Amino acid sequence: MRNSTRSDVDPFIVMDVMEAARRAEEAGRHIIHMEVGQPSTAAPAGARQALAKAMENGSLGYTVALGIPELRARIAQLYGDWYDVDLDPSRVVVTSGSSGAFLLAFTALFDAGDKVGIGAPGYPSYRQILKAMSVEPVMLETAAENRYQPVPSDFVGKGLDGLMVASPANPSGTMLGKDALGALIDAAQAENTAFISDEIYHGIEYEAKAVTALEHSDDVYVINSFSKYFSMTGWRVGWMVVPREHVRRIERLAQNMFICAPHASQIAALGALDCKEELDANLQVYTRNRQLMIEGLPKAGFDRIAPPDGAFYVYADVSHITDDSRAFCAEILEKAGVAVTPGLDFDPDRGAGTLRFSYARSTADIEEGLRRLTEFMANR
Amino acid sequence: MRNSTRSDVDPFIVMDVMEAARRAEEAGRHIIHMEVGQPSTAAPAGARQALAKAMENGSLGYTVALGIPELRARIAQLYGDWYDVDLDPSRVVVTSGSSGAFLLAFTALFDAGDKVGIGAPGYPSYRQILKAMSVEPVMLETAAENRYQPVPSDFVGKGLDGLMVASPANPSGTMLGKDALGALIDAAQAENTAFISDEIYHGIEYEAKAVTALEHSDDVYVINSFSKYFSMTGWRVGWMVVPREHVRRIERLAQNMFICAPHASQIAALGALDCKEELDANLQVYTRNRQLMIEGLPKAGFDRIAPPDGAFYVYADVSHITDDSRAFCAEILEKAGVAVTPGLDFDPDRGAGTLRFSYARSTADIEEGLRRLTEFMANR
Repeated sequence: MRNSTRSDVDPFIVMDVMEAARRAEEAGRHIIHMEVGQPSTAAPAGARQALAKAMENGSLGYTVALGIPELRARIAQLYGDWYDVDLDPSRVVVTSGSSGAFLLAFTALFDAGDKVGIGAPGYPSYRQILKAMSVEPVMLETAAENRYQPVPSDFVGKGLDGLMVASPANPSGTMLGKDALGALIDAAQAENTAFISDEIYHGIEYEAKAVTALEHSDDVYVINSFSKYFSMTGWRVGWMVVPREHVRRIERLAQNMFICAPHASQIAALGALDCKEELDANLQVYTRNRQLMIEGLPKAGFDRIAPPDGAFYVYADVSHITDDSRAFCAEILEKAGVAVTPGLDFDPDRGAGTLRFSYARSTADIEEGLRRLTEFMANR
Repeated sequence: MRNSTRSDVDPFIVMDVMEAARRAEEAGRHIIHMEVGQPSTAAPAGARQALAKAMENGSLGYTVALGIPELRARIAQLYGDWYDVDLDPSRVVVTSGSSGAFLLAFTALFDAGDKVGIGAPGYPSYRQILKAMSVEPVMLETAAENRYQPVPSDFVGKGLDGLMVASPANPSGTMLGKDALGALIDAAQAENTAFISDEIYHGIEYEAKAVTALEHSDDVYVINSFSKYFSMTGWRVGWMVVPREHVRRIERLAQNMFICAPHASQIAALGALDCKEELDANLQVYTRNRQLMIEGLPKAGFDRIAPPDGAFYVYADVSHITDDSRAFCAEILEKAGVAVTPGLDFDPDRGAGTLRFSYARSTADIEEGLRRLTEFMANR
């Protein structure tokens, strides 16, 4: 049967690592998972209780396309609590994860052939989704001295139709401060470049608070999710804040493309918003893990790292050790029993010389992983 | 802020009806809902129990992109039970509702500018999603004498890249028999036109069994969902069967565009597959309601109808009564207290002279609705 050319997207290279790890576990080996991009914790108890109760009472049919009004209001309130931003709930759109938000945002903003700038290294699905929608991803190679975040000179004059940034970023964990983010928004707006801010790791931050693009401008798209801080990856529920004049456009698209985000997940998300204590306990684990990583990785021999501002990743330059991060990851898995992600998914060019370590798992796992990595590097 | 042209999709006209019905109810009026496209029943008890149990034990993180293997296997088994088709589970893709399946199918099969034929009247989101993906929907005006289903002469020679059919169809409830469906598939394949079969209403059928496109060919896309027969609309979980050589392509797209279908909904869906007794009891209600409708509507004055083969809709030609179905629906709502859908959403041209009545609600509601419609028409 025929197929489209836009569906010729790249495979995830990390999948090879995950498949090899699965086979090793099947064969009886014990593997430490530093490749995963999700919390190992469940959705908070209050989220699960809210859904269990709703399942006894309601029929959980379709919700309205923009989401349960009470959930939209509570998300808007979060912007007051977290950033002191006064947000109109009617600008909040509940989505099927941040994935659903990307699909809606890209459709609302860009036509086939448009160009959207994304930083490298960055979340690989940005460029694959753009390609699948016939939009051209323009890779902006970010500099280590800019902590792998774009700066205006990376894109000004390139005629971009859109610019997507992430803070805290995946894989680097670095954040854009208020001034740096504001400068990017101003430069984009000066060129009529739509600005999209991926804030999915907000809430998981260590030494400073993350800044939302809404602190600087209302004329932006902001994407967030219940997957990370709220520990609800598999539930596929997130949100997007859009300019007031785009709400109806997004509503019509959402009605047709999604009908609604999963009702059960929306109810669980509403419950999760009241689980600060449990979620902050998760955050304490990440904080402890991060400290172990930034102390332990250099001792093991991975000394070209920057302490992450947020998220649960450390991005390491290993170009002095290897020029084939894929083979190096396979070797680490085989000899050390630690699954790690090669940088190639995040940066097709320079990623042959980088690795991403995740510290989203338990502290005991991180300690054991660091012990194994240290031994592996000592014997290499 | 800028916006794309492809996001200029039409609003749903039924939304006006629903909003007017909501306002009437808020003002204290009692409204009978014959506009809704979903069961009023909850997900089956076994589905909810399976999820309640899973929430106590597991973390419900991401599943693999193509869905929980056990669920894919059970769906494949359904093709044996329902159609005596032997289906390889590796060809089954679990999706975020049939909505997610449309997005994956259209991306995998069509590039920007491609042309896809869809029957009018038909489900309005087909053409809006195609437009949103920069694919051109080609409306095939179907004939009442063909029971509003396309025939090969409607599209042969038009150079279509794809053809989408639905059986049972929304809004007409008509089905394609084995020969008619086979003739469409053969004619499409002879022109290298990708064939997509929307089988979302399978299981809700009355006098004959619905036929799956897979009974005729493996070289087709088949889309189905847990929303209708399995009574799980808000859960956003469905599936798609694709040709073997398309599985990896769809997997890569799904990894990037969706990550996975909602994990909780997948678990509930697996539970629902063992709830035949409860689901068949729902079907008995539809069967009774259908009988009331095909007897009662003509008596009320809506006599240009065909008995539906499946789904839970009756499509009525009212062109001898009105040339403005939208205003007519508003009048029915105001005077009779019955919410009905104007045909314009399904057929932008001829829909000014048609209505869709849904009988998805309780039998008591259907009886009262018919009583009100009869009185309204008698006094008109």
